[in-house]
Amino acid sequence: MSAMNAFYAQSGGVTAVINASACGVIETARKNKDRIANVYAGRNGIIGALTEDMIDTNRESASTIAALMHTGGGAFGSARYKLKGLEENRAEYERLIEVFAAHNIGYFFYNGGNDSMDTAHKVSQISKRMGFPVTCLGVPKTVDNDLPITDNCPGFGSVAKYVAVSTQEAALDVASMAETSTKVFVLEVMGRHAGWIAAAGGLAGSEPGDAPHIILFPEVPFNKAAFLKRVKFCVQNYGYCVIVVSEGAAYKNGKFLAEAGTRDAFGHAQLGGVAPVVAGMVRDNLGYKYHYAVADYLQRSARHIASATDVKQAYAVGKAAVEFALKGHTAVMPVIKRKSDKPYRWTIEKAPLSRIANKEKMLPKKYITKDGFGITEACRRYLSPLIKGEDYPPYVNGLPKVAKLKGISVKPKLHKKFVV
Amino acid sequence: MSAMNAFYAQSGGVTAVINASACGVIETARKNKDRIANVYAGRNGIIGALTEDMIDTNRESASTIAALMHTGGGAFGSARYKLKGLEENRAEYERLIEVFAAHNIGYFFYNGGNDSMDTAHKVSQISKRMGFPVTCLGVPKTVDNDLPITDNCPGFGSVAKYVAVSTQEAALDVASMAETSTKVFVLEVMGRHAGWIAAAGGLAGSEPGDAPHIILFPEVPFNKAAFLKRVKFCVQNYGYCVIVVSEGAAYKNGKFLAEAGTRDAFGHAQLGGVAPVVAGMVRDNLGYKYHYAVADYLQRSARHIASATDVKQAYAVGKAAVEFALKGHTAVMPVIKRKSDKPYRWTIEKAPLSRIANKEKMLPKKYITKDGFGITEACRRYLSPLIKGEDYPPYVNGLPKVAKLKGISVKPKLHKKFVV
Repeated sequence: MSAMNAFYAQSGGVTAVINASACGVIETARKNKDRIANVYAGRNGIIGALTEDMIDTNRESASTIAALMHTGGGAFGSARYKLKGLEENRAEYERLIEVFAAHNIGYFFYNGGNDSMDTAHKVSQISKRMGFPVTCLGVPKTVDNDLPITDNCPGFGSVAKYVAVSTQEAALDVASMAETSTKVFVLEVMGRHAGWIAAAGGLAGSEPGDAPHIILFPEVPFNKAAFLKRVKFCVQNYGYCVIVVSEGAAYKNGKFLAEAGTRDAFGHAQLGGVAPVVAGMVRDNLGYKYHYAVADYLQRSARHIASATDVKQAYAVGKAAVEFALKGHTAVMPVIKRKSDKPYRWTIEKAPLSRIANKEKMLPKKYITKDGFGITEACRRYLSPLIKGEDYPPYVNGLPKVAKLKGISVKPKLHKKFVV
Repeated sequence: MSAMNAFYAQSGGVTAVINASACGVIETARKNKDRIANVYAGRNGIIGALTEDMIDTNRESASTIAALMHTGGGAFGSARYKLKGLEENRAEYERLIEVFAAHNIGYFFYNGGNDSMDTAHKVSQISKRMGFPVTCLGVPKTVDNDLPITDNCPGFGSVAKYVAVSTQEAALDVASMAETSTKVFVLEVMGRHAGWIAAAGGLAGSEPGDAPHIILFPEVPFNKAAFLKRVKFCVQNYGYCVIVVSEGAAYKNGKFLAEAGTRDAFGHAQLGGVAPVVAGMVRDNLGYKYHYAVADYLQRSARHIASATDVKQAYAVGKAAVEFALKGHTAVMPVIKRKSDKPYRWTIEKAPLSRIANKEKMLPKKYITKDGFGITEACRRYLSPLIKGEDYPPYVNGLPKVAKLKGISVKPKLHKKFVV
């Protein structure tokens, strides 16, 4: 079997460790030059394949590729771009295969979440039907931690660590000031549908009375009266109240708290920001002085406080994807299999993309305390190992040093422009 | 001279390194047991003195005191509580001296910002007049970096590092997604009057086109047309635009942007949040997809990414305060004197509290670029050494380990309750 090229693309919202997966893919491919001649990386994800705009990773030095391990963001550019169903947009799939064929690309590594696994799955099927079978591997990545089968998703452990550390730090701050100043602090975190990230805030405390005192999950319908009662209880008993709220927190009827009628000067419904809504409720009903933070991209990009476990796993799934591909597996994704909680032991297995695509793993009920405001011991056992270990980037002049890619383009071979 | 006790209090908003100053005070006092028998720390700052609620630091082990070096928040509790003028509230000053006298407190170390330096100054004068002269030392602390004379203020370097690192990280994220997703990212940082913290965001980039592309300082009147023009230019030329905005950004007439007419569902003017206002302007006028983060307390409490320079200086000013006191100086504050930028060399001198109290140091004009949206090379030279070095706390189970004080109270000696 003569060597073919591989195509690697980053997809969807980036994470602090997605480049560690890229590193795993590229370094492993480089060790198998006889099978994979080059890894072409899509500039801006799958769009780079469609527009024949690919980065020649063979032109990057070993040290640059190694530096991807500690570089945040998506080094090759990612994209929020979902290929439609085959019936709706056959042209896109055909173009993809055409580009793959032109560049002798026999391997497709797609680094993303649910949607991307669906795409990788479809590409594997279509390429076969079109007579140019491509080995398609998913490489899991999502801060949302909502992919099924895998124990967790690379990217999540680092957000979880950021949120747990930030909650602990802010709580120390608020606790020391509460006598005369802020009594209620609200931290808004990501998670539109699943409360995994919010749950991670719960790791900041372990004793009764420890912050965070309240977590608002998307999985638990918001009960304003119960919430306010609990805030009041915390302030009266602990002197302050720290709240971690998921952006997806919603009422029983499904309406997001963030849509709760806040309007700007022009009367536009104000987008985003569940934290000010929750804080406003506290102010209007209890009158406590409050502060709120919206972590937004800071949480998912925080490579400086990445979890060492997460970095290792992100690399491992990239490496395993290449190894599975070379063993002839296709339409699969490496998954992390937990073997024990304490000590935390895990291994990499594989699962068919068909079982992963378009499925969401929510926070199970047993991970949420009965009152709906906290995490259980079972949840703590699950989450705790994922934030373990610090994997600090190197610093220059007080700032993290990041990989600087040459980013040299692969020469296009098709003389047709494709507009996405 | 027989040994007396010292009173130490934390004041105002806490910082990531205020406890390092406490450590400097206590460890240095412990080395001089013949002069300072014990350091009593005010529970919740100066309120602890007024209510005779003080923590006996002699009851804390050497390792607990050492652990203050890497513990965020204010370990003894801080307070937003300003003693009024002597004429308005003589009773408070008299009570303070009464408590000091009852507990044989001959030294007062007040760890705070402008207001606290004013208080320390007044206490030094009043105690003398009342016949119980107390040696009063200020210990500088403020994330706002607005104290005069001193090169910088302990607490600031760590916020500056947090903001610079976070800006760099979020920029990597946005840059990699901008082709198909968010094009404008807004990070709101602290600084009601002075733009030091916002300026620190500027350290994230150094080449033209690097993020942050726009900084909005309180010192520069906001010009909406010029701002929008610049955002558009950045998106068109660099593909994205990262904005760091100070909470104190204001119009020419002094009105804060954050007050720009946003109202909640009840018609209340919405408090806080300049980031959504700025982001909303971008949306309404340019239509770009945006995200925003509000760092709030996360920035000032982020001990996990504290600047090593800052930690060292915070300890040094605490230590120097005790040393100055033992040399007989009173009504002074240790100040940091910069001796060179590169390599960064500094030493500790002293300045009279009268020259520091109630004065604010704004960002000088020469630190802001002509267009008002960036920092100059001079500013970079000033800021850069302050964020240098990483001083990581120890971790247990993925979370920073913090000092746990016994917090044993000093037995009250006065049989009069004082209500603050």
